[in-house]
Amino acid sequence: MSSVPECKRILIERVVPALDNGRYAVKCEVGDRLVVRADVFRDGHEKIVSSLIWRKKGDQKWERAPMKCINAGIDLWEGSFIPPGIGAFEYAIEAHCDLLGSWAGDVKKKLDAGQDVASDLLEGIELAKRYSAWLPKSEQSNWKSLVKSAETAKSQLERVAILFSQELLGRAAAVPDPGTKVVSERVFPLWVDRVEARYAAWYELFPRSQGKLVKKSGAAGSVVSGRNVGATSAETGGTFKDVEARLPDIQEMGFNVLYFPPIHPIGHTQRKGPNNSLNAAPGDPGCPYSIGNSDGGHDAIEPGLGSFKDFEHLVKKAREHGMEIALDFAVNCSPDHPYLEKHPDWFSKRPDGTIKYAENPPKKYEDIYPINFESSDREGLWNELKRIFLFWAEKGVRIFRIDNPHTKPFSFWEWVIRDVQEEYPDVLFLAEAFTRPRVMQALGKLGFSQSYTYFTWRNFKQELVEYFTELTTPPMSWYYRGNLFVNTPDILPTFLQRGGRAGFKIRATLAATLSSVYGIYSGFELCENEGIPGKEEYLDSEKYEIKPRDWNKPGNIKSYITTLNRIRRENPALHEYDNLTFYPTENEHVLCYGKSLDENNVLIAVSLDPFQKQHSFVYVPIEKYGIKPEETYQVHDLITDKRYLWKGQKNYIELDPKTEIANVFVIRRWIHREQDFDYFK
Amino acid sequence: MSSVPECKRILIERVVPALDNGRYAVKCEVGDRLVVRADVFRDGHEKIVSSLIWRKKGDQKWERAPMKCINAGIDLWEGSFIPPGIGAFEYAIEAHCDLLGSWAGDVKKKLDAGQDVASDLLEGIELAKRYSAWLPKSEQSNWKSLVKSAETAKSQLERVAILFSQELLGRAAAVPDPGTKVVSERVFPLWVDRVEARYAAWYELFPRSQGKLVKKSGAAGSVVSGRNVGATSAETGGTFKDVEARLPDIQEMGFNVLYFPPIHPIGHTQRKGPNNSLNAAPGDPGCPYSIGNSDGGHDAIEPGLGSFKDFEHLVKKAREHGMEIALDFAVNCSPDHPYLEKHPDWFSKRPDGTIKYAENPPKKYEDIYPINFESSDREGLWNELKRIFLFWAEKGVRIFRIDNPHTKPFSFWEWVIRDVQEEYPDVLFLAEAFTRPRVMQALGKLGFSQSYTYFTWRNFKQELVEYFTELTTPPMSWYYRGNLFVNTPDILPTFLQRGGRAGFKIRATLAATLSSVYGIYSGFELCENEGIPGKEEYLDSEKYEIKPRDWNKPGNIKSYITTLNRIRRENPALHEYDNLTFYPTENEHVLCYGKSLDENNVLIAVSLDPFQKQHSFVYVPIEKYGIKPEETYQVHDLITDKRYLWKGQKNYIELDPKTEIANVFVIRRWIHREQDFDYFK
Repeated sequence: MSSVPECKRILIERVVPALDNGRYAVKCEVGDRLVVRADVFRDGHEKIVSSLIWRKKGDQKWERAPMKCINAGIDLWEGSFIPPGIGAFEYAIEAHCDLLGSWAGDVKKKLDAGQDVASDLLEGIELAKRYSAWLPKSEQSNWKSLVKSAETAKSQLERVAILFSQELLGRAAAVPDPGTKVVSERVFPLWVDRVEARYAAWYELFPRSQGKLVKKSGAAGSVVSGRNVGATSAETGGTFKDVEARLPDIQEMGFNVLYFPPIHPIGHTQRKGPNNSLNAAPGDPGCPYSIGNSDGGHDAIEPGLGSFKDFEHLVKKAREHGMEIALDFAVNCSPDHPYLEKHPDWFSKRPDGTIKYAENPPKKYEDIYPINFESSDREGLWNELKRIFLFWAEKGVRIFRIDNPHTKPFSFWEWVIRDVQEEYPDVLFLAEAFTRPRVMQALGKLGFSQSYTYFTWRNFKQELVEYFTELTTPPMSWYYRGNLFVNTPDILPTFLQRGGRAGFKIRATLAATLSSVYGIYSGFELCENEGIPGKEEYLDSEKYEIKPRDWNKPGNIKSYITTLNRIRRENPALHEYDNLTFYPTENEHVLCYGKSLDENNVLIAVSLDPFQKQHSFVYVPIEKYGIKPEETYQVHDLITDKRYLWKGQKNYIELDPKTEIANVFVIRRWIHREQDFDYFK
Repeated sequence: MSSVPECKRILIERVVPALDNGRYAVKCEVGDRLVVRADVFRDGHEKIVSSLIWRKKGDQKWERAPMKCINAGIDLWEGSFIPPGIGAFEYAIEAHCDLLGSWAGDVKKKLDAGQDVASDLLEGIELAKRYSAWLPKSEQSNWKSLVKSAETAKSQLERVAILFSQELLGRAAAVPDPGTKVVSERVFPLWVDRVEARYAAWYELFPRSQGKLVKKSGAAGSVVSGRNVGATSAETGGTFKDVEARLPDIQEMGFNVLYFPPIHPIGHTQRKGPNNSLNAAPGDPGCPYSIGNSDGGHDAIEPGLGSFKDFEHLVKKAREHGMEIALDFAVNCSPDHPYLEKHPDWFSKRPDGTIKYAENPPKKYEDIYPINFESSDREGLWNELKRIFLFWAEKGVRIFRIDNPHTKPFSFWEWVIRDVQEEYPDVLFLAEAFTRPRVMQALGKLGFSQSYTYFTWRNFKQELVEYFTELTTPPMSWYYRGNLFVNTPDILPTFLQRGGRAGFKIRATLAATLSSVYGIYSGFELCENEGIPGKEEYLDSEKYEIKPRDWNKPGNIKSYITTLNRIRRENPALHEYDNLTFYPTENEHVLCYGKSLDENNVLIAVSLDPFQKQHSFVYVPIEKYGIKPEETYQVHDLITDKRYLWKGQKNYIELDPKTEIANVFVIRRWIHREQDFDYFK
């Protein structure tokens, strides 16, 4: 037998958005309005007043936004606020009974039914008196004299007028009776990122491949003429200066994030040769993911690329070209990494005392020594890794692409991301995890700003619709921003290997329009598609070789990519992530979807067939666009700049791999009518 | 900057069932197996071992049920247990890394690839040594000698054999490495009821109406010849003894819960007359919901019904007839209730000092004084109400039907139900709330065993399918047991008013088969259908009058109800609540649904049209029943006892208001084949 509990009358349930009941923060971007809904109800018939309360984390004072009951039948309430900046926020729901309002509602019903309310009015006065104590001191004397005037009113009519006035009844609604006030059981965390967390176009390149391409007479292939031709080929590649030379070209294409695989010194011991061969030849540059040698580790730069001064100059130049630098963060250490000597306890040892290289049996990665996150010096190790992030942030880097986060402890990422963002709230983290969905989702929930996706393995209609519906609707859209890479140094998808130039255009179009954030790995624009037979990997992968290129190679799709990125820039609907809707078509190979924001309605139709011409009826959501069935409207294809007049839902399109594989329409109404014409009025 | 956190590698998410993240208990009934699922995963590739742990609330020791990964792609695990009795239980999920198992998995892959594992085996021995400390003392010496024998093994083969043995590797899996062990963030509550919480047939009657009906010569109607004909008609009605006389009839129909509206003394002041009229005539019995007079209050019995001894005798007799008594609990007090004198502070007062009667403006309930749950003597009041429950429980009552719980504080119910069930875990509470869905759901969540539903207002196909799908699937099926009343003293649905005898049969069939728990209010079996014009209320309601009846009135459907209840008893599938599935038919007026349990497959087709004959193709889920498309099977209509041979999914039925409005089929396979014949083998 327990003692009598508090008398709780109001319940607050099903607060959305809320990630795992508030265990993790939902995300939005600066400028967004966060709309919060909850079921708020009580027993009986009394009225409720509910507020959304919110504050920047660490602040004392809560801000307050009114909530409105948007569906009384299911007690659904809604409120919203615009977080005033980036960083950590929190919100909760508050509610109280509107005692005076409930009283007034009952009195009104009695008045309408012609019943006597003399006694009720006296009750109202008693009730109003109780509010004095709940009001701020400054309002109390005014309140008391108002109530007094109701008490001494000459007539019932006058008394009603005073009690029902805005000053009394209106004010009372916002004053919580401390006896009925409740707050949602949890405070819900919110993380606000800068807009680039949601809207960006990434371009990935290996700086060492950016040297100029020169033909060497007699040679079968091409060789590099970099700036620092030296003893080993690791020092013969392109440099940060060469990257600077490429900035105008990349800016012209319309990218705004320039992402480099690791730029640190590369190990010599067990260095990998071309195509991941076990024994590198002298002069082979090694794999940038095998980090560290006598020149330094994760806080050093491969000397062949340039100095810190060069790096900082590049960061500045990139910014001038509207781009920012994203760095790779791979925990991998080469056998020559300074950590091995200084912190041998950070690595796992064999019984014979040697340090273990990475394995995923039966595969072996002899050039990589994995760090043991459960090392006995865990504190030293985890703090050092955090220091690396802060080191590069201090050099001006605000985006990190994390290599294989799914093989390190979740608690490490949650901690390191929170701490780095506490110091630099504008830092973004991209999770490069290709693994099971729950693990990828967990990384998004615990704090990663963006994540890679299964996009490269989703090529056809049903699988695209299902996957992108999941990615862009709650709960995933609350925390997971899919950055759609069309290719990576690790993945040359079958679709690109076999689909030719049209295949590249199809995948670029899908990536650039299905998500607000996407990326290409350099070479994509040249339609490079030679894979290792039977695998989705590049032949002669750039991970193990320096690969200078003719960036204007015939057959490239640079102008198409330029067009896509321009369309993205010019259409605010494409800057949003969670506004994707699929629409029916009559052809299995034609995918149709739309994105809208305010007046900007974009409708995209993509052929998923890189080989044959496809045609289909597509169903335009005219009702959503505010277009009447009998109204003729204009669709403007932003790729070809052609315009069409359509009417009604059902319209016909043709897509041809030989010409254009997609329509990216902006829908425009013919808004002028004779009623708008001056003489008509 | 924060300090380094724990190294947490395993995450446990999405535990189901879980009500509001464990805020409320899910319910099941004794004998049920509770199946619990969760996403359990970690970073990397190491193996996980997960257990469902559970215990009776208050016990120290957790029981343990193994969980199995039932879908590795989405890291979905499942475990289950059968709670060994009624009462409060709790469960959680535990998981740890199978360090030795993960090591063995890697070694096996290397062995399969023909790689050298000498060093790996030494690692395995080191790892196995660490387990000693994690094992119970009693196992340690045996473990150590096993590891020793692996260490000193003569050959690699022998070493592998020992390390991979069931005694080492098998045992190790169940031993949690304290470094990796995690438990779900919450412990989830479970409440186990007796079976009657889910499976019962209720019969509601007014004891005072159970007197024998005698014709009085010259009188237009009938009058009552009760046993205690006295001064006022409140004392002239039927008694508990008369109820005893009716037990065989009610048992014969197949009901097992006998529910009485309040049996307490009824107020005299402001007593209501027939049809809720304001001024009762002398001799009018008053409304049983206006509780209390000088004879006592909620812990007294209206003297006209009998004594406590009579009541206890009735409880005993009912039990002998396979029935238990359910009492009404209405907080309402008449103006004459002893509480008003003893505890005037439990009631709300007007400014003039008089006590307020109940109002729902502009409606007034002058004969009822509502209790103020926020009284200054809240402790005294709430404890007194709890005492009432315990008082009747002590008298042998184990079911309470709660009148209008939705106008009293949620926290009161949560507390009183928990405390009463702590003392009497077999007590059941039925919530009579007809209000908005969130409020009805909240009452179910906080502890009510059963709830009234919107059933009376769901009459046609789409609305029945939608509503009953919601009621019988998660999350509602985890906590809400809809008790389908076909009528109540307050509700005579339009469908019954207009649908005639066939209408009554339709509604009885739906109630008895859509849910495992249902009820009728007496008079239903006589097809009483005279309502107040334009309202869904009974004319001359029994709430204000004594209404003896001829229980064998021509046109009654007692034998139909008897059949329905027999079918329910004989078919275990109909004892379950959450096994309802709807199947397509080709006629909007024919509803088809099935319930299955083990080998018992019941398929029900009901016409929703009480006027016209309907026919339809129905689609039998033969695949679910394990019947092949080419196989002929038997459907046995348990209402008519007719049998039909059907084949395939699509079959034809006819339902006629003049004969039968429903088929309740049991599906029977023709299981014997020539292969089963002795000579054939």
